[in-house]
Amino acid sequence: MSLRLVESLGTTEPLSEIFSDSALLTAMLQFEVALARAESRVGVIPAAAADAIARAAVPGAFDASGIACEARKTGTIVIPFVDALIARVGAVDPAASTFVHWGATSQDVSDTALALSLARALPILQSDHEQLTTALRRLSNQHADTIMLGRTLLQPAPPITFGLKAAGWFAAVSRTGAQMIAAGHGACVLQFGGASGTLAALGPHGPAVAAELARELDLKDPGAPWHAHRDRLASLVTACGVYCATLAKIARDVTLLMQHEVAEVAEPGGGSSTMPHKQNPVACGIALAAATRVPGLVAAFLAAMPHEHERGVGAWAAEAPTLVAVVQATGAALASVRDAVGSLRVDADRMRANLAATGGVVFAERAMMLLAPALGREAARCIIADALATARRDGQPFAAALAANAEAAAALTPIELSSMDSPEAYLGAADELRRRLLDELRNPGTSE
Amino acid sequence: MSLRLVESLGTTEPLSEIFSDSALLTAMLQFEVALARAESRVGVIPAAAADAIARAAVPGAFDASGIACEARKTGTIVIPFVDALIARVGAVDPAASTFVHWGATSQDVSDTALALSLARALPILQSDHEQLTTALRRLSNQHADTIMLGRTLLQPAPPITFGLKAAGWFAAVSRTGAQMIAAGHGACVLQFGGASGTLAALGPHGPAVAAELARELDLKDPGAPWHAHRDRLASLVTACGVYCATLAKIARDVTLLMQHEVAEVAEPGGGSSTMPHKQNPVACGIALAAATRVPGLVAAFLAAMPHEHERGVGAWAAEAPTLVAVVQATGAALASVRDAVGSLRVDADRMRANLAATGGVVFAERAMMLLAPALGREAARCIIADALATARRDGQPFAAALAANAEAAAALTPIELSSMDSPEAYLGAADELRRRLLDELRNPGTSE
Amino acid sequence: MSLRLVESLGTTEPLSEIFSDSALLTAMLQFEVALARAESRVGVIPAAAADAIARAAVPGAFDASGIACEARKTGTIVIPFVDALIARVGAVDPAASTFVHWGATSQDVSDTALALSLARALPILQSDHEQLTTALRRLSNQHADTIMLGRTLLQPAPPITFGLKAAGWFAAVSRTGAQMIAAGHGACVLQFGGASGTLAALGPHGPAVAAELARELDLKDPGAPWHAHRDRLASLVTACGVYCATLAKIARDVTLLMQHEVAEVAEPGGGSSTMPHKQNPVACGIALAAATRVPGLVAAFLAAMPHEHERGVGAWAAEAPTLVAVVQATGAALASVRDAVGSLRVDADRMRANLAATGGVVFAERAMMLLAPALGREAARCIIADALATARRDGQPFAAALAANAEAAAALTPIELSSMDSPEAYLGAADELRRRLLDELRNPGTSE
Amino acid sequence: MSLRLVESLGTTEPLSEIFSDSALLTAMLQFEVALARAESRVGVIPAAAADAIARAAVPGAFDASGIACEARKTGTIVIPFVDALIARVGAVDPAASTFVHWGATSQDVSDTALALSLARALPILQSDHEQLTTALRRLSNQHADTIMLGRTLLQPAPPITFGLKAAGWFAAVSRTGAQMIAAGHGACVLQFGGASGTLAALGPHGPAVAAELARELDLKDPGAPWHAHRDRLASLVTACGVYCATLAKIARDVTLLMQHEVAEVAEPGGGSSTMPHKQNPVACGIALAAATRVPGLVAAFLAAMPHEHERGVGAWAAEAPTLVAVVQATGAALASVRDAVGSLRVDADRMRANLAATGGVVFAERAMMLLAPALGREAARCIIADALATARRDGQPFAAALAANAEAAAALTPIELSSMDSPEAYLGAADELRRRLLDELRNPGTSE
Repeated sequence: MSLRLVESLGTTEPLSEIFSDSALLTAMLQFEVALARAESRVGVIPAAAADAIARAAVPGAFDASGIACEARKTGTIVIPFVDALIARVGAVDPAASTFVHWGATSQDVSDTALALSLARALPILQSDHEQLTTALRRLSNQHADTIMLGRTLLQPAPPITFGLKAAGWFAAVSRTGAQMIAAGHGACVLQFGGASGTLAALGPHGPAVAAELARELDLKDPGAPWHAHRDRLASLVTACGVYCATLAKIARDVTLLMQHEVAEVAEPGGGSSTMPHKQNPVACGIALAAATRVPGLVAAFLAAMPHEHERGVGAWAAEAPTLVAVVQATGAALASVRDAVGSLRVDADRMRANLAATGGVVFAERAMMLLAPALGREAARCIIADALATARRDGQPFAAALAANAEAAAALTPIELSSMDSPEAYLGAADELRRRLLDELRNPGTSE
Repeated sequence: MSLRLVESLGTTEPLSEIFSDSALLTAMLQFEVALARAESRVGVIPAAAADAIARAAVPGAFDASGIACEARKTGTIVIPFVDALIARVGAVDPAASTFVHWGATSQDVSDTALALSLARALPILQSDHEQLTTALRRLSNQHADTIMLGRTLLQPAPPITFGLKAAGWFAAVSRTGAQMIAAGHGACVLQFGGASGTLAALGPHGPAVAAELARELDLKDPGAPWHAHRDRLASLVTACGVYCATLAKIARDVTLLMQHEVAEVAEPGGGSSTMPHKQNPVACGIALAAATRVPGLVAAFLAAMPHEHERGVGAWAAEAPTLVAVVQATGAALASVRDAVGSLRVDADRMRANLAATGGVVFAERAMMLLAPALGREAARCIIADALATARRDGQPFAAALAANAEAAAALTPIELSSMDSPEAYLGAADELRRRLLDELRNPGTSE
Repeated sequence: MSLRLVESLGTTEPLSEIFSDSALLTAMLQFEVALARAESRVGVIPAAAADAIARAAVPGAFDASGIACEARKTGTIVIPFVDALIARVGAVDPAASTFVHWGATSQDVSDTALALSLARALPILQSDHEQLTTALRRLSNQHADTIMLGRTLLQPAPPITFGLKAAGWFAAVSRTGAQMIAAGHGACVLQFGGASGTLAALGPHGPAVAAELARELDLKDPGAPWHAHRDRLASLVTACGVYCATLAKIARDVTLLMQHEVAEVAEPGGGSSTMPHKQNPVACGIALAAATRVPGLVAAFLAAMPHEHERGVGAWAAEAPTLVAVVQATGAALASVRDAVGSLRVDADRMRANLAATGGVVFAERAMMLLAPALGREAARCIIADALATARRDGQPFAAALAANAEAAAALTPIELSSMDSPEAYLGAADELRRRLLDELRNPGTSE
Repeated sequence: MSLRLVESLGTTEPLSEIFSDSALLTAMLQFEVALARAESRVGVIPAAAADAIARAAVPGAFDASGIACEARKTGTIVIPFVDALIARVGAVDPAASTFVHWGATSQDVSDTALALSLARALPILQSDHEQLTTALRRLSNQHADTIMLGRTLLQPAPPITFGLKAAGWFAAVSRTGAQMIAAGHGACVLQFGGASGTLAALGPHGPAVAAELARELDLKDPGAPWHAHRDRLASLVTACGVYCATLAKIARDVTLLMQHEVAEVAEPGGGSSTMPHKQNPVACGIALAAATRVPGLVAAFLAAMPHEHERGVGAWAAEAPTLVAVVQATGAALASVRDAVGSLRVDADRMRANLAATGGVVFAERAMMLLAPALGREAARCIIADALATARRDGQPFAAALAANAEAAAALTPIELSSMDSPEAYLGAADELRRRLLDELRNPGTSE
């Protein structure tokens, strides 16, 4: 297995496998085999050479750690990898070894191997994303009428519904997930340019080989190499950054709502090594950890972008560990938030109770909207401030304190007075907004 | 004027004006006036109040610095701003002052004012971007046949054309500029949600007021408030990050090509405070400075995204200076690269000379491609290594050293031998790739 | 006043003044005047020239915005600034104008002006820091016996004292503040190297002029110029990063403890533009905003460090806005946390009540420590799990549920049974650790 | 072996081993064994239990991947690790298993294991650092008189010596290396606080156990736990950031000087997978890659610092992969720069030739310093500008063009005229500054 202790919370098992040594070796071999086949088909190298290369390309026959060590002398894992492949092919068919890596450069191998890895990771992300949005939509619909405190700056505000909160999560996740997946597809492209990006080593056959190679690898042919222009990868990295932060917003809300003193929702969570009573928000913690790491990783990727000339020195080597960490962390956050949302327990009674425990002071805005037109802003402000002070001092409901003020009582209708602290009467457009958020088209570009 | 010393290289005059105190005050007043008009039209507040608010909303009457100081006590500039507006309206029409900021919350004002500012900044970015892509396309076409060294890891590589290099710049700038502008439009949306995002203070009229308000401000109505979901802004910020780094890649190449020892291109540049001979790459320096700052700013914005509940504490206040710095830095980089590219001097002779000065060693790959099929990889490798060593030791051209090897000479045709170090004979698909890059559709999403 | 709307929460009034246009102009003029004086004293330029330069150096006579605009053409504000100074001196004493900026380069001016600004900012930071540590120490002592819930992963844990929590804040603030101030002093050094850093323009007099210049400006003479080595500034920037995050940890704790549902502490806070009942954690919000921005700014500064050769292109211009933002944000966080801590209201009763509201489940670890040696780990685990489940199901105290288990009751002494959920009996070394933290030496390097 | 393909350029073999699964398991076991021994010595647990735990603690008996997978359910690798240890001890001595991990919490294990790993990594860093500074000092002394172009903004400037450049590298590396090592020692401290940081589970014995435990592990006892205050680790991470950027400055200079068109220095470098002639700056590329990644990682670490209450949710899990990546990347950069500097080839002739190829325009500043006092700044400026233009137009040396101007010739002494473009005559204090930089005390705090 490929999961390591130090990164165990920053990935998932399937994603750690995709970027493992054996998977990377496999992807690099795929490139070399497909290149040989494409070149043989176009007539650049003998068919027998392509066959021999394909036969020799057995991942298990390569020593990943040895290649990794050697890479520090050559500046890339591709040089020792190609040397090893040449040696293996040469052992099988000496003539064929001449045509290994024919006309390609190291970056063609490593960039395309990365694209192949991303092409394997994307369906995982996409599937988890769909499960999450489905769960969020369901959660929102289930709790369309579940009233809870709004909270701004971590202080009580007028009520919302939990359905509206979940719909906000849904819409943001939908928008940013769609962008991440689109950027992911945009990054799954062949890189094939040869030494300087002109495919000169293939004479007139470069573009034809490129087209065949892309087809063979089931990657898009971008029409031209992009060795020194890293924006496709950067767009994926940044889209992961935005998506991951959106997931973390859900995790942040859940961890706050799961505090013992709030206790409005709970994810299943996990325990402690010493405290038997503990139920910790483990899944949300994983998402928050990911979102803590990813912004800096995004910065690192962007900082690496201005490559020098036709291939940068240093910048290129900074990309792979960064991109791989971003994709894995995003996938870890996604899987965790999906799990947390999918099994979220919601305590509607506690939501009600927490709202009630404010003594209705969150309806002071409502009082303002009702009194100000009649009494003027300043008079209304004073009356409400008095009522708030009274309510706080005496532990009395705000509505009662307000009703005790003759001026206020005179300015309000009996219904207004009696419903002053009724949450149902002060939800505004909550449900209309909720439904609009759920109806948001998947493609954010066209939804507005 | 609004440009400050400490930020002078991180913005442009027009952009610094857009985010100046007076412009921000104007945008906040626009929101309040438009809100009053929209509410009056929907019947929520009296028409006379809307008129009075509009009359009082004179930017020059507000004390920006005073508001800024007060903001440290309230946590937002909007509270002292609204207080000042209430006072001004009250002085004109006491009854009207009641309806200032009616049903809105501070974040509605500041987010929408930011959107209004972005809507003013976008056409500037778009226009500069179009000038840049036009200049890059022209540069590429002019130099379709201008041969130069490819350079990888800052070392000589087989030749390319300057036209291909410029086409690579063009394609990357086109892709990332389109994404930035799309993200910019996506961020120019109304924010209007009231205290908790339900528009409760407007009773049943919230959505209608929102629609009117968006129309009044010429902003899109996103259908629902987004106070706690910052992905639209984040998408702009990250798209700026990718675009700015793409601009910096051009600037990096130009500064390297402009070194005295290379001298292949030059931007007009500027001088020194003490060295009369100096011609410094000033415009490119501005772009590189921007691209050095922006990745960290992007990280800061992403880190701020997971707001708590319906309005975060702290996160929100971290956004505005970050976003404003990113947009200005990107605009500064763009204007500078446009200037540099638009007035770039290209020395095709020097390009030739620098290529020639390698003694043709960059064609060793070509020799390999020609000799290996005939002699086998290992034999070819040895012959070429010998020829390279001889050439270096004796200061001889590589082609001559190679031709002196009998085995090599026998394996090559006379034309191959005589053209071994002819750059024209080893450009591969350079011009086809160049034309493909120039034809790249503007929308990268659909081009692949 | 120099405070601007967009940055109003990211600085303080005194710090915004220090980095204002007029203050920067003043600092640059200080450099030029001191340089002339030093050179005149060493005999490099005529005394009359130094006098004329000093007379002309009136900050108000310079057009900051004009200089800022011009900077985009020259790549630095220093060139138009020096041109303006030459013109002014020339108007007073044409001969003296020759000796303006004699032997210096632009970077000498801007780096040293930055050092002068930092030397003005440091005492403010130091004073605020001392006020904060004093307040924290007092807070810790006042609440040495104030018992509250420990909270880990936002879930209840065994009790601590508020005094211990405050002592933890104190020690971390003390350690990191001392490092910031030391790094600040380390950055307040003269930069003076001339064009290439050899002081060649001053012939044999360079070092003597440098020493005089440092004395004149009351800055340390580092012995050699550091134009291309930015580690002194970087050490300040990173120390601010660590300090600011440490301040934010306090702010985060306070905002969480100030939630309505927790209500254990409160900072004075501020209101809302629409919700009359609101008391928002404004000061803590400012600190959290700063700590959200600063890590990315730190990354930007570090990314700018590898300058090319004797003066980088781009990197240098990226530093000033970044450093200035970091110092101001750190100062803003510091002033805010000092205010919040200094006026913190602590509700010891509510702390008790919140602890009691857990039903004593946080003492399950204690039960484990008492039962496991007698019954074995696994048997103890089962008994405690049963008691926790019973307590949760029946709303019973954990201690009672545990006492109802015969095996547990038999294994525990009467005192252990009766004090099972007594917080006083399970504070461990809380007060010893608290006193150790308060005694921590100021210099963290020597305290360990 | 522990080195992986995706991280192969971001670490070294010894460092990758230190943070490998088996090494982390070993460190965690070390903690548990030392804890048992300490507790047995203090009388908290039976000596027999400590012995049994020590016997069971065989790293090879634990399934790292299984623990890593399990960690996603528990939020930390420590819980499944402790479970596995309990099981192993239980198999050997059931009674002893009760006392595994006695009174400790997960964070105690993982933080202390990290400190133990850092304590193993530090001597490697320190040794490599000393080799580097030794090599830099030697390089500077060898080239005290090797004259080369100064270069600012990548354009020619007055001459320096290579010895001065190397001394600048030396001083910056010395300053920042000393800080990194000091911060590293500051981070090698025991973490031991138990569930809430009070050591309550150990009753009165907590501090005594902590002291024994620290002694047993050869770590400093910081006097109090620091579970929620991460500044010691942050100081190491940021010091690595500053150090790594300082190393990258050397690498940047070397890669630029190694360009074929400059060719003043060369590191041994490595080849290409397709270009036989290539000698790429591999070691410098590794350092630049590290310095590209590290700033963002530093930002991530700082962003994680404000933990909630007594143990954060998410923040804690974000630290380990970040810190481990920073330390390894820094170590990789260090080893590479040491190799590059240690085997640097310096071509003093080429340095001379490149300087000469400027035609002496870099001495225009010198001309200014000599002419301005005699002729006035403006007259001197015109004459020099004319001479520069003439020199450039006619390919003439600047000194000759200047001498051809009668006014200039009259104002200068014959020696000044004849030595105008003599680099030796315009080195200023280069060697004095060089010697000062080499004498810089190791501890930067005391050197100023």
